[in-house]
Amino acid sequence: MAKDSAVLKSLRDQKGQFVSGEEISKKLKVSRSAVWKEIQVLKNLGYEIGAGPHLGYRLLGIPDRMLPDELSAGIKTKFIGRQIISYEETRSTNDAVFHLGEEGLKEGVCVFAEHQTQGRGRLGRAWVSPKYKNILFSVLLRPDLSPAGVSKVTLMAAVSVVKTLRLLTGRRFHIKWPNDVLFHEKKLCGILTEMSSEPDRVNFIVVGIGINVNADPGELVKGATSLKEITGTWQSRIEISQTLLETFESDYLQLKKGEFEALAKKWEEFSSTSGKRVTATVLGRKIHGTAVGIDKEGALWIRTDSGLQEKILAGDVQHEK
Amino acid sequence: MAKDSAVLKSLRDQKGQFVSGEEISKKLKVSRSAVWKEIQVLKNLGYEIGAGPHLGYRLLGIPDRMLPDELSAGIKTKFIGRQIISYEETRSTNDAVFHLGEEGLKEGVCVFAEHQTQGRGRLGRAWVSPKYKNILFSVLLRPDLSPAGVSKVTLMAAVSVVKTLRLLTGRRFHIKWPNDVLFHEKKLCGILTEMSSEPDRVNFIVVGIGINVNADPGELVKGATSLKEITGTWQSRIEISQTLLETFESDYLQLKKGEFEALAKKWEEFSSTSGKRVTATVLGRKIHGTAVGIDKEGALWIRTDSGLQEKILAGDVQHEK
Repeated sequence: MAKDSAVLKSLRDQKGQFVSGEEISKKLKVSRSAVWKEIQVLKNLGYEIGAGPHLGYRLLGIPDRMLPDELSAGIKTKFIGRQIISYEETRSTNDAVFHLGEEGLKEGVCVFAEHQTQGRGRLGRAWVSPKYKNILFSVLLRPDLSPAGVSKVTLMAAVSVVKTLRLLTGRRFHIKWPNDVLFHEKKLCGILTEMSSEPDRVNFIVVGIGINVNADPGELVKGATSLKEITGTWQSRIEISQTLLETFESDYLQLKKGEFEALAKKWEEFSSTSGKRVTATVLGRKIHGTAVGIDKEGALWIRTDSGLQEKILAGDVQHEK
Repeated sequence: MAKDSAVLKSLRDQKGQFVSGEEISKKLKVSRSAVWKEIQVLKNLGYEIGAGPHLGYRLLGIPDRMLPDELSAGIKTKFIGRQIISYEETRSTNDAVFHLGEEGLKEGVCVFAEHQTQGRGRLGRAWVSPKYKNILFSVLLRPDLSPAGVSKVTLMAAVSVVKTLRLLTGRRFHIKWPNDVLFHEKKLCGILTEMSSEPDRVNFIVVGIGINVNADPGELVKGATSLKEITGTWQSRIEISQTLLETFESDYLQLKKGEFEALAKKWEEFSSTSGKRVTATVLGRKIHGTAVGIDKEGALWIRTDSGLQEKILAGDVQHEK
């Protein structure tokens, strides 16, 4: 998709007021026909651009598309999402970022997609999302962690998502261990963390986040919900993405400083798992009990019905009714 | 490089005796000129093929190259190295196999190379090896392990290498924790394990093994040695590779059955670290003490000078003089 457009920036700077083609062409030192061509490109991307004789052009509306220009406009991050690639369609944003990691790109680069042909969730499950409706992106990280420490990043990402969604919608979203974001037990967001590593050293991590934003109930899988369904109105995917990237960066910097405990506390606050009756499935074995909470490594502790405490590092947890 | 050649197989079946071009052409149902062309291809690959009037062709010698045909000939494995790709030159065999892993190939596929342009060792260090002299290969594995369990595979690989080299040369090679193979404290072999994983599930593992075989002292980095230097004679890279793949498979099957303890015992037997005065460097911190041994997770335990026992999962260990 388009890289940052100087013409778009000129229009944006006018905040909806007219600017003449001549003025833009002088400012950017390009011909008036080059300006006209770029205006057509922007219109094709879905930008609403008004034109009046002797008045010039003005920006009336931006497209509901995850364009790098829109995602970058006004974002306050230092390194997360300062470099963005957007695809109409890709196999999976995690795969795309994984390849960028192998090519040695710096941490913070993000890949957004309108559609994934092989979207994945945890444990190899499919992640399905209708085109142009939801947020699908992945980010490259290069933290100084051992592979065992990587689950902290996953828990952190869930905290960042809940903070963002609570802030923007005022609704009470919860986290189901380890990293599903729920609203009244219906799934709104999934997070898939993958890494390339040696046994004792992480090369890089890819965090993929999928949030159901404007999907209609008929477009969602069973047990899922969307922000539109919850709030009753269309939501700006751009605004949510920008706030999320900013929150994510600030939480990630906290994690990098070694302050995971503050994040773990937030996680506990947002958790709908702690204190609940749960069934955990670990390598085919089912464990029934009450979730006690997470420890400083991000493991879930369960007090089983036989009175033992069990530590769950992997697997699935179901909340009992 | 060439895939399995039917003409080569016909020559090999004669065990050095002549076979006529006509006989080969009848057996393989191809023209005599096709047989002649294939003979030229084999000669170009370095095969020594004798030809006599009215006698036909016979195989006199195979090239000192890591060709899939040679590596596969007579190998007794079930899945390790049943599919082999050989490169004259590649960036790194680990990178090549990593990509095969991402493409979903089955475990056991191997990539060999005569030369790596960006060969790597542990912790991002360079691995340098002169062309056509040593063994450089990587293998794809898909064990049912958590990321924390992957160091077991690394330790196992070191055991497989030492078993193979002791068997073929009768010399006493040792392992320095976690996975360097030494001869009288000089490095002969390095192992680099890398993985693609979720925090709680391994997607796949790549084990890369580099063995200095016929490199001359002048071609080796400081502190390294080769089998040729140790034994005084040229060694067959093909024979070593085949024995190693067979040993590796049998050890890996043992690991998969959950019998790591037997491998750990072998590791202890081969270890030159256990019982030695060592300096471990962990995240920049130096720990001085006596290596006690490895535990069932593959961690090295050190009794420090202050009397504490420390568990080393990552980092570097130097044997003190």
